[in-house]
Amino acid sequence: MSSPVSVRQIDAVIQARWIVPVEPANVVLEGHALAIDDGEILAVLPVEQIEQRFQPKKTTVLPHHVLMPGLVNLHTHAAMSLLRGYADDKPLMSWLQDHIWPAEATHVSPRFVRDGTLLAAAEMLRGGVTCFSDMYFFPEAAAEAALKAGIRAALGLVVFEFPSAYGADADDYFAKGLAARDRLRDEDTISFCLAPHAPYTVSNKSFERIVTLAAQLDIPVHTHLHETHDEIAQGIKQYGVRPLQRLRQLGLLGSGLIAAHGVHLLPDEIVLLAEHGVHIAHCPTSNMKLASGIAPVANMLSHGVNMGLGTDGAASNNRLDMFQEMRHAALLGKVGSMDAAALPAHEVLQMATLNGARALGLGDRIGSLKAGKLADMCAVSLSDWITQPCFDPISHLVYVAGREQVSHVWVGGEQRLFDAALICQSAQELNEIAALWQNPIGTKKTRS
Amino acid sequence: MSSPVSVRQIDAVIQARWIVPVEPANVVLEGHALAIDDGEILAVLPVEQIEQRFQPKKTTVLPHHVLMPGLVNLHTHAAMSLLRGYADDKPLMSWLQDHIWPAEATHVSPRFVRDGTLLAAAEMLRGGVTCFSDMYFFPEAAAEAALKAGIRAALGLVVFEFPSAYGADADDYFAKGLAARDRLRDEDTISFCLAPHAPYTVSNKSFERIVTLAAQLDIPVHTHLHETHDEIAQGIKQYGVRPLQRLRQLGLLGSGLIAAHGVHLLPDEIVLLAEHGVHIAHCPTSNMKLASGIAPVANMLSHGVNMGLGTDGAASNNRLDMFQEMRHAALLGKVGSMDAAALPAHEVLQMATLNGARALGLGDRIGSLKAGKLADMCAVSLSDWITQPCFDPISHLVYVAGREQVSHVWVGGEQRLFDAALICQSAQELNEIAALWQNPIGTKKTRS
Repeated sequence: MSSPVSVRQIDAVIQARWIVPVEPANVVLEGHALAIDDGEILAVLPVEQIEQRFQPKKTTVLPHHVLMPGLVNLHTHAAMSLLRGYADDKPLMSWLQDHIWPAEATHVSPRFVRDGTLLAAAEMLRGGVTCFSDMYFFPEAAAEAALKAGIRAALGLVVFEFPSAYGADADDYFAKGLAARDRLRDEDTISFCLAPHAPYTVSNKSFERIVTLAAQLDIPVHTHLHETHDEIAQGIKQYGVRPLQRLRQLGLLGSGLIAAHGVHLLPDEIVLLAEHGVHIAHCPTSNMKLASGIAPVANMLSHGVNMGLGTDGAASNNRLDMFQEMRHAALLGKVGSMDAAALPAHEVLQMATLNGARALGLGDRIGSLKAGKLADMCAVSLSDWITQPCFDPISHLVYVAGREQVSHVWVGGEQRLFDAALICQSAQELNEIAALWQNPIGTKKTRS
Repeated sequence: MSSPVSVRQIDAVIQARWIVPVEPANVVLEGHALAIDDGEILAVLPVEQIEQRFQPKKTTVLPHHVLMPGLVNLHTHAAMSLLRGYADDKPLMSWLQDHIWPAEATHVSPRFVRDGTLLAAAEMLRGGVTCFSDMYFFPEAAAEAALKAGIRAALGLVVFEFPSAYGADADDYFAKGLAARDRLRDEDTISFCLAPHAPYTVSNKSFERIVTLAAQLDIPVHTHLHETHDEIAQGIKQYGVRPLQRLRQLGLLGSGLIAAHGVHLLPDEIVLLAEHGVHIAHCPTSNMKLASGIAPVANMLSHGVNMGLGTDGAASNNRLDMFQEMRHAALLGKVGSMDAAALPAHEVLQMATLNGARALGLGDRIGSLKAGKLADMCAVSLSDWITQPCFDPISHLVYVAGREQVSHVWVGGEQRLFDAALICQSAQELNEIAALWQNPIGTKKTRS
């Protein structure tokens, strides 16, 4: 009955009806709470133990909620939120060549990227995403938006051979990307990947330079790979081998490589990915919408390939909604393997959180609710009758809940969403940004 | 400048930013309004003409909304909302035999059906569904719930050979179903289908009786058909022919037949469906989740087969969300045919509205916004920044909006949802219903 002399003063305690830590896998904790100090998770323990050990400045009680790690969107082009629904129901090459690339050529600028990324960051935070891996022009403008929104971002330093509003040639892309990284290296919530766009837009010389730079800088490489049959056919025609084989020959394959899409993979290519520890950013919605194909996800998982989930850009999805992406990964994974037991809910939840974090080299910092990790988290309310009854909260996160049930979001312990309202931006500000771009983009579209 | 002597007094006028009438196809009207009297649509015309011709008791202005026909859920088992998420990630036969059927054997009663259907009806109305085609036990209890909720329902008079809490044998199912129909035949919002459950649960004798009854009563027949490979293999083993062929021999094929799922169809079977005017209730989410397969939707549409969309029951979806179903129909239709231009948004919207209505024999009453039809409608708000920018409202309905954007719903001109709140039931009442069943169902589940 003595007073608890060892009680530690901390920033916050969060109690939730359910805590789904993701690590260990497929666990639902009840009667637990989570202690946070200085942006980090100190402990996930039964409520009584938390109360005995910690004295928080603030206690949040979430009586009808699942508390879970923030979602990690492993592949997106955030600024393309401004091209949401710009060209739907088009064959892939027409979509890209006749619509998206011309629109980008006309509109993309630092302002476009900052505004589009801000809209995207708001959408992602609103839906429980706390970290995204981006690939787009003007990464410094994307960083500005991510910092304003307070979302964690792994920004791709994009490399093409062809010119754009952002860069003149490969050398210029490299120079601008590295300069952006230098200027932003002290930002805790910003990290970087080298981002050669795709095998069909990047030369061997540039890929070789990327291998060297990735080793020097110790940062991941993020590229599109084996997204479509066309890409593979074109690669064989130009280089005599399939793109994955070409990247292997160039020394790209390794645990620092994030391959976005990975739709068309032969059995021995899956073995190769697993052997080299290559990460896949699976994008089921985009792969369906652009009719790219069905990735052999169940097969890759059984080989131990680490797979995260990505929304791709809003022009090919058209939502930056990781709850939708989880649902689509599970559903498409089942029908793609003709096995209803494939891609169970807890595995998909891990893909959308911890696996994405691991792919970004952030597996020791985020992706699960574990002492020592950063407090990147979201809370999902399951109290609405529309999500009732609930027999298994993990199943509900994947098959029933939508991003509209996300009520609270924290990034590094800082609250970014409270009662489903964004803290960093007003709705009016976001509506103004969208309105600002709606007319010029829409007008050009009508004319074309 | 004379006063408009011919102005007609009517119940209501609704103005919306966009009106998507579905008929004619792929049209978006701006600057238009819709006039309603006595539950029927009188006109869809430019605002000035509506103002000249009609004097409404009530005018509703929806400045950021799409006004569209209410969604028609062509295949569901509404009461199974109480088994939402009861058994996920299971192979189909285990799901059915080890989980769903035992749970139904334990729990299904008139009360279960009334409560479950009420929860389902509320969920559907909340998501813009104004009519559903149901197949479950105790259709009279389902009718009670549909009437309470104020949703239009086509109730299946279910027939099995095996006993359940509802019926002892096929004769008993027939007798009870027909008696229910007799008692409810004066209800405007309730119609009926004969609902032989599936080829593997219904005998030739019962199917023959259904052919006779359907002709006598002039009502549709609603059955599961070619949902899985197993069903077809079992049918061949037992009857020597594939189930569709068997139903043909029995005289079932015709414009009165609604075949739910239709996943596994040979090219000549698609021709057969088209020739006979058989309707398909396409259920993409359920077909993915249970790994039933990918229906040849693009092929069926190109042959002129009329296809509506269904959610199936909440135990295999797990949402009764026709916005999700539209998105999944489009996405799966594209990747299933490897054609990004397949299943364009406006075609999917027609499937989810007019095609469903036609399948139910209600094509002249509901399914599009057209003078003379009933005012079954919903409004979808696209003002939220999370759905911005918007270049094409029809595309946004399918690829961007969710049921959470549905703001208003009318059934036969009666408002059922206002500012996203249900009028007929309180949230508390619905939460109490879910809570009432959560424990007994969940407890049994834990024990099993």
